[in-house]
Amino acid sequence: MTDLNEGRVLVRETSEEELLAAIFPLLPTGAATLVGPGDDSAVVSAPDGRFVVSTDVLVERRHFRPEWSTGYDVGWRAAMQNLADIAAMGARPTSLVVSLVIPGHLPVEWVTGLARGLAAACAPSGAAVVGGDLSSGDDVVVAVTVHGDLGGRAPVLRSGAQVSDVVAHAGRRGWSAAGLALLDHDLGPLDQGLVDAYLRPEPPLDAGPAAADSGATAMLDLSDGLLRDAGRLARASGVGIDLDLGAFRGDLDRLVVAASAVSAASGTLAPAGAEPGPAGAAETALARDWVLTGGEDHGLLATFPAGTALPEPFRAVGRVVAAPSAGVPGAAEGRAPSVTVDGAAPRAHGVGWDHFRG
Amino acid sequence: MTDLNEGRVLVRETSEEELLAAIFPLLPTGAATLVGPGDDSAVVSAPDGRFVVSTDVLVERRHFRPEWSTGYDVGWRAAMQNLADIAAMGARPTSLVVSLVIPGHLPVEWVTGLARGLAAACAPSGAAVVGGDLSSGDDVVVAVTVHGDLGGRAPVLRSGAQVSDVVAHAGRRGWSAAGLALLDHDLGPLDQGLVDAYLRPEPPLDAGPAAADSGATAMLDLSDGLLRDAGRLARASGVGIDLDLGAFRGDLDRLVVAASAVSAASGTLAPAGAEPGPAGAAETALARDWVLTGGEDHGLLATFPAGTALPEPFRAVGRVVAAPSAGVPGAAEGRAPSVTVDGAAPRAHGVGWDHFRG
Repeated sequence: MTDLNEGRVLVRETSEEELLAAIFPLLPTGAATLVGPGDDSAVVSAPDGRFVVSTDVLVERRHFRPEWSTGYDVGWRAAMQNLADIAAMGARPTSLVVSLVIPGHLPVEWVTGLARGLAAACAPSGAAVVGGDLSSGDDVVVAVTVHGDLGGRAPVLRSGAQVSDVVAHAGRRGWSAAGLALLDHDLGPLDQGLVDAYLRPEPPLDAGPAAADSGATAMLDLSDGLLRDAGRLARASGVGIDLDLGAFRGDLDRLVVAASAVSAASGTLAPAGAEPGPAGAAETALARDWVLTGGEDHGLLATFPAGTALPEPFRAVGRVVAAPSAGVPGAAEGRAPSVTVDGAAPRAHGVGWDHFRG
Repeated sequence: MTDLNEGRVLVRETSEEELLAAIFPLLPTGAATLVGPGDDSAVVSAPDGRFVVSTDVLVERRHFRPEWSTGYDVGWRAAMQNLADIAAMGARPTSLVVSLVIPGHLPVEWVTGLARGLAAACAPSGAAVVGGDLSSGDDVVVAVTVHGDLGGRAPVLRSGAQVSDVVAHAGRRGWSAAGLALLDHDLGPLDQGLVDAYLRPEPPLDAGPAAADSGATAMLDLSDGLLRDAGRLARASGVGIDLDLGAFRGDLDRLVVAASAVSAASGTLAPAGAEPGPAGAAETALARDWVLTGGEDHGLLATFPAGTALPEPFRAVGRVVAAPSAGVPGAAEGRAPSVTVDGAAPRAHGVGWDHFRG
């Protein structure tokens, strides 16, 4: 058998069974696993009598760039973005399965790195990788499906927000987008913390079940940007959401230095939405854009009845208001924003990520 | 909104939300779904207190060719190969999630066709598609994860076969490989039934739980070929398997006409393993190769205690024997075959599919 520990062995120089034999010992195990990898299917405990399930896919050059992200980073991200979807229902993760498409020119250590990244991301929650599939292909594709257990809780849906609820957020806002922009302008060393937030996001997984226990009326994972995802929650609930930008002061303060450097490097004076103003307006607008529209931080946005003692690390960031009515400009045509910022229609460069329209 | 019913609309001319809106109404629904698509995660009933889970990925040009397979065919196949993994544990499917990577130049009707194919394949078992993810990418990739319920049965593993057990098979053998060979030589019209078996396999899904109820000691889905997969079962159980080629007489009779045409078209006189012999030896050898090594029929191979009344449509095709011992040539070097055919080491062109060594 080829020694797969030599870093320079390529995937095409191994067999599928050799590769699986190298990966299997690295995968995380967990208490819910009744039958693990190696049979036609795995068997997982579901003590609640229900299970929660979500799937997310990462595609090379769409979701990560091989020159920036190691296999470990991709494994970490693939796990975390899925684990966040379980947390957003108020559940705790139990198990994952992973379909992996890899080109033959990839080093085997990239693949074992991915397994280590999956394991590291799963370790705190005790979730296990219980199965998978491998195929060759031109581009790396990592499709992860994750399962969770509600522990008797009612699932927290997007559709339960009520007018006068408090809107609360847990996690980072805009860090991932800022880290990506830094990498894109060769400015990574300026703030490695932002870069790391892009490469290996750290969603507040425990906050999901805590929110459910505290009576959250609605919740979702912020994967495509605050405005876009808040709009989804608002529309699902038939309400409006007014956000308080000042609640993100901590994030804005962290991001403005990176925004300044990126603005200077890109030669753009101001993104769309910035108004003529004093020196610093461009970077302030860019930092605000990252907070409002940056994706992939995987924080949690939840609504709670007014007066709820918010569980850590949730912070109030707005309130639930009535859905846009006929009195609002554009409402008749369905164009009235369901999300406002400080009471006004948001001015931002974009409204979040769309895979097909970019 | 773009009218997605016009066949010539391309994926890149739609938004992700428009595409999802076109797909959602086509997806199969089922009784086990507590929270369906549209939230961060789905919630599925698991009355058994456990769930069975498996994942399989299809990659364009690796697992299907766009010029042969429609979106419907790919959706059908993606569902069926996963459903077969659930059946192979003795379980019944409840739910699927689907991660789909599609290039922008794909017609939207290819994607809606895929949803229809998934739905048609799931209809008999009542399994629902409860979630998914969409991404753009250069090649089509379909990663399906399927879940099943054991209904109180013990899962049937690969590792339980006992010496003197009967080896039984349910489903077709070699049809998919023959159909692929016909397409590859522009001979499809010669036997559309074989071509259909390749494009839209029909695993005997009900046979899995029936085998479990009849006391099957081991079972697996034949995805990579009879010899290769039987070898996996034999090694997992620490036994040997002796197959009776004559038990596949019905399949061989069906395949020999196609084998004759393919042999003539390809100009090869005889595949490896064929001995000099009378006219017809080449096609007989090719048909035998399809039966022994052809993949993707997704029949079930199971072992039962001798004397078991085999549930339909299982047929006895061999017996479990002792693992290769030191007395067998090659055993000392670990090269003794764990699977024999009519008591002898199999002579076949290959031993099944390996994704990386081809």
